[in-house]
Amino acid sequence: MVLLNRAFEEENIKTFFSYGSCVTQRVYGAIWAAPYDVKAVIIRSLSNSCDMNPHTGVTYYEDSITKIPIAAVSTAAADALSYFYSIEGPLSVNFELKCETLPDRLSANVIAETKGNEFSNRIIAMGGHFDSWDEGEGAHDDGAGIMHCFEALRILKKIGYQPRHTIRCVFWINEENGMRGALKYAELSELNNEIHVAALESDRGGFTPRGFAMDSVLLSRAKNYQDLLRPYGISELELGGGGVDIGPLKKQNKNTQLVALVPDSQRYFDVHHAETDVFENVNKRELELGAAAVAVAIYIIDQELD
Amino acid sequence: MVLLNRAFEEENIKTFFSYGSCVTQRVYGAIWAAPYDVKAVIIRSLSNSCDMNPHTGVTYYEDSITKIPIAAVSTAAADALSYFYSIEGPLSVNFELKCETLPDRLSANVIAETKGNEFSNRIIAMGGHFDSWDEGEGAHDDGAGIMHCFEALRILKKIGYQPRHTIRCVFWINEENGMRGALKYAELSELNNEIHVAALESDRGGFTPRGFAMDSVLLSRAKNYQDLLRPYGISELELGGGGVDIGPLKKQNKNTQLVALVPDSQRYFDVHHAETDVFENVNKRELELGAAAVAVAIYIIDQELD
Repeated sequence: MVLLNRAFEEENIKTFFSYGSCVTQRVYGAIWAAPYDVKAVIIRSLSNSCDMNPHTGVTYYEDSITKIPIAAVSTAAADALSYFYSIEGPLSVNFELKCETLPDRLSANVIAETKGNEFSNRIIAMGGHFDSWDEGEGAHDDGAGIMHCFEALRILKKIGYQPRHTIRCVFWINEENGMRGALKYAELSELNNEIHVAALESDRGGFTPRGFAMDSVLLSRAKNYQDLLRPYGISELELGGGGVDIGPLKKQNKNTQLVALVPDSQRYFDVHHAETDVFENVNKRELELGAAAVAVAIYIIDQELD
Repeated sequence: MVLLNRAFEEENIKTFFSYGSCVTQRVYGAIWAAPYDVKAVIIRSLSNSCDMNPHTGVTYYEDSITKIPIAAVSTAAADALSYFYSIEGPLSVNFELKCETLPDRLSANVIAETKGNEFSNRIIAMGGHFDSWDEGEGAHDDGAGIMHCFEALRILKKIGYQPRHTIRCVFWINEENGMRGALKYAELSELNNEIHVAALESDRGGFTPRGFAMDSVLLSRAKNYQDLLRPYGISELELGGGGVDIGPLKKQNKNTQLVALVPDSQRYFDVHHAETDVFENVNKRELELGAAAVAVAIYIIDQELD
């Protein structure tokens, strides 16, 4: 057996950078091990925290290779295995996996929208994903994201805002395991000759919002609002903004401006894809501030883009 | 009996503003009620959260008035009392308090310092308070604050930084209930002809740091560092910076620059002075980032002030 034990680089202020540099051991670990005489692969969970929970997620095989079982163990367990190996040498480990891939079931994106009064055929989409990994409840990943956007739509209606564009809230399905919801959404959008002016994704948890990442055209406009955003603590504007569920829209139309809500990332990987990603670990105020921030972003997009 | 049921104004982004506008009902509630025919005062806990925990804290009497018992009930209980009163009218409430004021015991501030190599008689103090309210453990209030400063001192020594001024870490005692530690510290400082160039207090919890509040002279210097602070998420610099434990130093010397670490405030009053203010509710990474932020602030002060 092989243990892939690369730990998060704690010095990264934004934890997603640490995730990015470790996630390959989970995604490709079984492919890497295939050429060797290996019975199974154990990976260190992708988490900042020292805890007892496996943090799981997608892993890839290739048709041409031997499919070796792969499993995540908690960061604490990975440290223990590594420690015992260092003092005892080769270890004997019981390895039992009960997971299986079940046949596909029919599923759907869930969509709500309010029509624009100026460019009703031009759409601003906002959303997150409706599915979650099997550990926990997916409360942060991505229950928080879909609630951010659903609540943003409610806020805009509640204050009587008349959008220029059609504002669409989308709960994409199957983000975790194939992104078929996102691909189907983009396919139908093209079929229906829809134009997406912008698409916002919230998939970084329900923590205190700090700002937004977005494509360059929108970013240059949004910077004019930076001083207005500052008292609300959401003035961190950066280049970026892609996301799994909105990426396909950009492939269709390079002018579509992608946006991501950027919450504080410190606690995200404490719960990511683990049994601790539950409702109780979402803070009400932090979640509400995120929803308000999404509403603000949608307002700016609606005003600034045509 | 009287119920003082003023709720936090949720629209304040910074929760300390909400606290500030409600805290009078706890501090002065018994004094307000004294002229009336009132047997006891019940106050709504000072918290954003809807929970079942009383959030307690200091309350004042005056010698000239009748000392009426006063107690905090949870926000959920206050809502329930208010609701039942609205439909049933006057209610009967059992009210039993077992608290008492015990005789004073000898206690002490705890101090660590490293001598400056340029102005060893000029001091930069940083600290928090060593005592806590009796509910919970005082993990955020103010265990986090003293650990921020203790760890900042360790960081500065670990990287081999040679401070120009004497850097002093102080765990002040009795902040919650008389600030006698702060007063004694200032008194001894004056007796010993010490000059405090600046004093930093961390007493707003161990959450992700976002910046600093400080007096104007230091603020104008610190703004030159703002772009360097931005990648670390600690670039929010604002005028302010007072604190219970460092205030007396300013009274002695108006040139002393006061500084406060400003962490994200959204969750602070979920746990403030309640049984939920425990170690498990402090996030390791958020705490560590706060300590690093304090070390950064001390470096800037040490470089910029004489």
